[in-house]
Amino acid sequence: MNADDERRVTITVIAREAGVSVPTVSRVLNGRSDVAPDTRERVEELLRHHGYRRRGTRAVQRAALLDLVFPDLDSPWALEIIRGVEDVGHAAGVGTVVLAIHSESSSTRQWLQNLRARASDGVIVVTSHLSPPVHAQLRRLNVPVVVVDPAGAPATGVPTIGATNWSGGLAATEHLLGLGHRRIGFVTGPARLLCSRARLDGYRAALEHAGVPLDDRLVQPGDFYHASGFAAGSTLLDLDDPPTAIFAASDQMAFGVYEAVRRRGLRVADDISIVGFDDLPEARWASPPLTTVRQPLAEMGRLAARTVLRLAQGEDIESPQVELATDLVVRDSTARHD
Amino acid sequence: MNADDERRVTITVIAREAGVSVPTVSRVLNGRSDVAPDTRERVEELLRHHGYRRRGTRAVQRAALLDLVFPDLDSPWALEIIRGVEDVGHAAGVGTVVLAIHSESSSTRQWLQNLRARASDGVIVVTSHLSPPVHAQLRRLNVPVVVVDPAGAPATGVPTIGATNWSGGLAATEHLLGLGHRRIGFVTGPARLLCSRARLDGYRAALEHAGVPLDDRLVQPGDFYHASGFAAGSTLLDLDDPPTAIFAASDQMAFGVYEAVRRRGLRVADDISIVGFDDLPEARWASPPLTTVRQPLAEMGRLAARTVLRLAQGEDIESPQVELATDLVVRDSTARHD
Repeated sequence: MNADDERRVTITVIAREAGVSVPTVSRVLNGRSDVAPDTRERVEELLRHHGYRRRGTRAVQRAALLDLVFPDLDSPWALEIIRGVEDVGHAAGVGTVVLAIHSESSSTRQWLQNLRARASDGVIVVTSHLSPPVHAQLRRLNVPVVVVDPAGAPATGVPTIGATNWSGGLAATEHLLGLGHRRIGFVTGPARLLCSRARLDGYRAALEHAGVPLDDRLVQPGDFYHASGFAAGSTLLDLDDPPTAIFAASDQMAFGVYEAVRRRGLRVADDISIVGFDDLPEARWASPPLTTVRQPLAEMGRLAARTVLRLAQGEDIESPQVELATDLVVRDSTARHD
Repeated sequence: MNADDERRVTITVIAREAGVSVPTVSRVLNGRSDVAPDTRERVEELLRHHGYRRRGTRAVQRAALLDLVFPDLDSPWALEIIRGVEDVGHAAGVGTVVLAIHSESSSTRQWLQNLRARASDGVIVVTSHLSPPVHAQLRRLNVPVVVVDPAGAPATGVPTIGATNWSGGLAATEHLLGLGHRRIGFVTGPARLLCSRARLDGYRAALEHAGVPLDDRLVQPGDFYHASGFAAGSTLLDLDDPPTAIFAASDQMAFGVYEAVRRRGLRVADDISIVGFDDLPEARWASPPLTTVRQPLAEMGRLAARTVLRLAQGEDIESPQVELATDLVVRDSTARHD
């Protein structure tokens, strides 16, 4: 029996089980709109249950496209991941379709419609909850998904690629402790994101391990963006007993702290040490260049692309949850405190 | 005669003129590889000559993809353009395929192969020479092209979207003159790019107009990247008679000048005024925030996407060469010099 026969048998079986005709199953497979919604639902569910994978055009000639989905394209952070995905995609002859969903359901719907029309070999979702309905739709379309920098606990069976955020938080704080700092401020990321929690926990673990008591006033909320770093830095610097060092959970917030320091006529490093998190190219361009925890963003993008392309070819992957190592990069924004 | 008949007639005419069979023309149209190269060449030339546009699948169901081609993805500059293109594409139900060519001919070949296999509604090429062979291939594929920020004089008939670089150079220099500066350094972009030349000419025009003599030592070469801004800034600050203000032809180079200033124990604005060019998000994050010439990069991306989608639908565009206005954004890196 060749692939075509196999396919026909599967469609016939599915048509029978769904109580519809074979052409109806074909219409569902071809994404046609002239199928009643509940019929479509039933057929798609059975297709998935039987592990049906489109053959014919789809199998012989891949879509040669990957979808890379961001909540927004408003941080240089995104460009690093695009670079990594594009690099692997391009080498594999696969185009990288970049999307910003803006957390709008209309935007997501539009994308899924577009995806259904033009096909895709795989989807990479960045820093986002993959909502159960979207996940279900992608499963029905038989498009594999990988999540980069998961926002929360991932859906069962969805591979995720993150960074060792806890270890990074620990390393940054230990670096400051090693320089003699004892009052170390921390600017958090958004509380809803797992990575924020992990960085905060790493900061706390390092302090506890060094026997430095925690002071809640030294932990100020941020949202990864510049303005929140400026606000949190200002609050910390205006304490009666201000910190001698501030660790911000993103580079962008660290630059906000720089500005709070400058506005007070102080100097980064000389008067107060600052550490960031990400190692965006901007960290090298800052003045002074920023000591920061490097997340291998481009490498995370590359691994995500390789993983989703392997899934698209029906390969199994060894480990569904991967964390790539973070790495402290010491530059000129941190100095000894005596 | 309906569209299908028309299509058949065209294919028949082309087959006859090329001295090949109708199925051979179809094979060329479908991007199949089983056609001799010179036959393909001849048929594609005739298709183009007859203004043949694929109908059938292509016309009914567009590729729903745009290709956005960068030389490299190594500057936040690129992300601004991606944002604009993605915004318009997404709203139109068209995916944005982002590519980095790295000036490698193998990479370009790979992309064109990919493009031939999966189709595209249009191509946006950023800051690059569109080489004649690539341009010819895109014409043969009947894919419209728009160039953003043209590197040199554009190929005939290719629409370009740029910014008013000369006016921007003029405005930045006039701003510094208005603050009382007379010795104003300039860090250039790469000489091969038209935009670099236009910014330099704007700088010179402002000085001449104000009756300030040109001093060649005040013009230092850069390449738009950070390291060159640092080097050029260092050279300028180490002159016997250093400038009191420096205008860098990109934001990234301006940040390099910031670091050269800091290394000498000086302060931006208090001791030396600095102006950039681009208005990347980083300009707001710099400390102090950077006075700079805003290029409407996202808007340039939006216009490029709208233009190429109109061309894809066979519409004419009014003006093939468009320059969007630049705009001086005054922040805290420039101060009065008395």
